[in-house]
Amino acid sequence: MEKTNLLYVGKAKKVYETADKGLLIVDYKDDATAFNGLKKGTILGKGAINNRVTNHLMKLLQRHGVPTHLVEQLSERETLVKRVQIVPLEVIVRNIAAGSLAKRLGIPEGVKMSRTVLEFCYKDDALGDPMVNDDHILAMRFATEEELKTIRAYSHKINDVLSAYLQDLNIELIDFKLEFGKLPDGTIVLADEISPDTCRFWDSTSGEKLDKDRFRRDLGNVEGAYREILKRLLGE
Amino acid sequence: MEKTNLLYVGKAKKVYETADKGLLIVDYKDDATAFNGLKKGTILGKGAINNRVTNHLMKLLQRHGVPTHLVEQLSERETLVKRVQIVPLEVIVRNIAAGSLAKRLGIPEGVKMSRTVLEFCYKDDALGDPMVNDDHILAMRFATEEELKTIRAYSHKINDVLSAYLQDLNIELIDFKLEFGKLPDGTIVLADEISPDTCRFWDSTSGEKLDKDRFRRDLGNVEGAYREILKRLLGE
Repeated sequence: MEKTNLLYVGKAKKVYETADKGLLIVDYKDDATAFNGLKKGTILGKGAINNRVTNHLMKLLQRHGVPTHLVEQLSERETLVKRVQIVPLEVIVRNIAAGSLAKRLGIPEGVKMSRTVLEFCYKDDALGDPMVNDDHILAMRFATEEELKTIRAYSHKINDVLSAYLQDLNIELIDFKLEFGKLPDGTIVLADEISPDTCRFWDSTSGEKLDKDRFRRDLGNVEGAYREILKRLLGE
Repeated sequence: MEKTNLLYVGKAKKVYETADKGLLIVDYKDDATAFNGLKKGTILGKGAINNRVTNHLMKLLQRHGVPTHLVEQLSERETLVKRVQIVPLEVIVRNIAAGSLAKRLGIPEGVKMSRTVLEFCYKDDALGDPMVNDDHILAMRFATEEELKTIRAYSHKINDVLSAYLQDLNIELIDFKLEFGKLPDGTIVLADEISPDTCRFWDSTSGEKLDKDRFRRDLGNVEGAYREILKRLLGE
């Protein structure tokens, strides 16, 4: 399968059409952005790592019954995926207070939430991806009630599967962002990526951050953290 | 019933204890604030109007089965109410896009929502009353699942009753803010106020704003708008 037209250039990925209308090729970049694009940089090797980590975790989730857009990895940075209509919501799953949640509600970072918290943000860069609740989602028709129920159930399932898997690798899954898409027949599948760009991973013992917060907060050794995640997950 | 200790000074009201531990006196002020206290001013006669409008609407709601903290009006600006433990949530009920909703989601002001939208904000001035969803509310124990269900049901009921009542007075109920409290036995009751300070009222024919937006947005004739609401609701 080969790239035909460039369909979309995102902050961390390019997406190409292929000769098959139902399949796209995702090409992961080393570009890093934060704070809604205000901070920009490069994390060397990130594209290749995120491609491999995402595919590894999506395969794990598929084995646990969560459908995804993944078809197959094509190269170091490229993966073939099913074309979906993206649901215009970012789903944030939070086990432990960090980042914007800690700030917004005045909770010290690192405090375990008494229950898992899901947040939904309307995907709109110009509006700054505003947080929305179920009423907004239904009133604005970002998703139907049925789709929202499915997305919520998959998000909790993904959290359970990933948290358990990562715990065995001495990684605490603090929070993460998901995106879902719809296949032509309306089936909801997990799309986008699951990587140190979209998750907060803390070493369970030391609490060391092994994710994009090292870039956001200028903590140094950004590439090392991404490589450490690749090593723990794929043994290399 | 007479005031004993000053319990609390809010932006628009003072609250006093009385000889009866279960009863408080609310004293409405003419002070007006907006944008989380950044804008300050005075709206002459507002305290007396909001006291009368609130009590009038709370009595209407009580007749329709919504319990409130109201006991009785004591004077032009003072009302005796039941002491409640305030649920730390502002409930915003939205029928038509305006204010922060219009801005956050990029909807032109005045567009009717395809369904009524409820928003919850955590009452915390220092944090800027951040919006929260059901998961935040339950995880942070701002309310129990049962309390939240009751608050949501009362909010919709209040919207139905007020919208119909105001429509007959040629007033469109755009959106409004509610606060609820708990009696010592755990019963949820409507508390705080319902007035041009806490509602958006638009004249149904002309669209003229008859509420605090005249103050927030420097539209002039602020006092006139408050008096017009008093006149339409209480005939004077």
